[in-house]
Amino acid sequence: MSQRTVFFVSDGTGITAETFGNAIMAQFEIKARYIRLPFVDSVDKAHQAVRQINHTAEIEGRRPIVFTTVVNMDILAVIKTHCTGMLLDMFGTFVAPLEEELGSKSNHRVGRFSDASKSKEYDERIEAINFSLAHDDGQSHRDLQGSDVILVGVSRSGKTPTSLYLAMQHGLKASNYPLIPEDFDRHQLPPALVPHRKKIFGLTISPERLAQIRNERRPNSVYASLANCRNEIHEAEAMMRREGIRWLSTTSKSIEEIATTILQEIRPERLDY
Amino acid sequence: MSQRTVFFVSDGTGITAETFGNAIMAQFEIKARYIRLPFVDSVDKAHQAVRQINHTAEIEGRRPIVFTTVVNMDILAVIKTHCTGMLLDMFGTFVAPLEEELGSKSNHRVGRFSDASKSKEYDERIEAINFSLAHDDGQSHRDLQGSDVILVGVSRSGKTPTSLYLAMQHGLKASNYPLIPEDFDRHQLPPALVPHRKKIFGLTISPERLAQIRNERRPNSVYASLANCRNEIHEAEAMMRREGIRWLSTTSKSIEEIATTILQEIRPERLDY
Repeated sequence: MSQRTVFFVSDGTGITAETFGNAIMAQFEIKARYIRLPFVDSVDKAHQAVRQINHTAEIEGRRPIVFTTVVNMDILAVIKTHCTGMLLDMFGTFVAPLEEELGSKSNHRVGRFSDASKSKEYDERIEAINFSLAHDDGQSHRDLQGSDVILVGVSRSGKTPTSLYLAMQHGLKASNYPLIPEDFDRHQLPPALVPHRKKIFGLTISPERLAQIRNERRPNSVYASLANCRNEIHEAEAMMRREGIRWLSTTSKSIEEIATTILQEIRPERLDY
Repeated sequence: MSQRTVFFVSDGTGITAETFGNAIMAQFEIKARYIRLPFVDSVDKAHQAVRQINHTAEIEGRRPIVFTTVVNMDILAVIKTHCTGMLLDMFGTFVAPLEEELGSKSNHRVGRFSDASKSKEYDERIEAINFSLAHDDGQSHRDLQGSDVILVGVSRSGKTPTSLYLAMQHGLKASNYPLIPEDFDRHQLPPALVPHRKKIFGLTISPERLAQIRNERRPNSVYASLANCRNEIHEAEAMMRREGIRWLSTTSKSIEEIATTILQEIRPERLDY
């Protein structure tokens, strides 16, 4: 177990460097401190970043790990020349073989998130977020057919974060619709959902975890009691089985894993674009 | 300009491979088709992925580009041995030098998004999303002091998507509060905001872009007219200048760029963890 400082240096947001660097570092059992240095987009700022990295190296007596996605050659040159950290040049490593394979030079364009706001894809993403907000928790039955996916499940099973993630990251118009005791009494899918069966995906959760989450909201209520959670989950799963609705348990899954599974099941074309 | 198929192959969600691969491919002016293959977590599924990649190679007469973040050695071996695509082994490339640098072996742990739901960080993220939803568009003045950041700006300046992104990706309790004509008439910051000045960040936008966005919602209204948008933006920027509020223009910025700038200004510790 060693203590290390890890820098993510980028001329854009640094999100790519951070995502990738975190995934790599998760492969090691070390305690690390992480510092993202975004918008290092001038030679001056490069010198400033280098000073910070080299100062850390001196203080800690160990060279920091530096993941960089800087694409501007002048800025990268400053870092390569002066930085005393261990430099992992993520783009440089892969761009050269790709240039050969593709028979074309790279354009050293900064930041895949740049200028995004002008694109059609970006507008769709914003529209999807607004749609998902308007259709959160069964708020609006109107335009339910405009949904790309409709999440169903009992209260607090993870529908809202998942639908917002699908909207924000994938531009998917994701509605969500609660399954409530009245639906279980009727032994039927809520009537508003029936015409949209193909777009429905169910979320379930372990009763223990559900009781824990609900207790944070409404401590010691019937709503949050383990007995009630067990009953609601039992009914919801029975309904989903009966209606042939695809579903998964969110208990030990991250939003990213849940969202990826839903895409595979309901919108496979969003993984193939 | 060549047409290529690019695969992202992962034993987890494939989000890391996709984020990084897209950033690399954005460096080239080529038309490409992108296919994410998530959850390739068994030798069987590896053979299936290889068949799909090799089939694409045959049909297109060009080897596909394959970004992989597979960490399981048996699964990776299948891909390395049988895949006819150009394999870019993202983890393999960097893990070996890091093992040497850190003096420890990598643990080949799958997916940084895995088991996340059990972690404290994950719970905070869900709580932040719920907080931001409850404090969207000035809905609740209660607990405004519980906010990590409060976004202000005129209607449709980008507050809602930005606050949800900050909550979802950074676990930040982000409220947002609209600046409305009544505030401009009073020539004062909304009273509810005054005690929280340090947490406030302003969003502005070009009047032309604002009019375009508002017209999609309420075509030909006074609200959406260019004259009204010009006036509101003029008043909002004057107020932010007068009150010493930090702000940026969202006109040509992506949510990721806006969020990163806000973190730098209001919560620099979130870039250093």
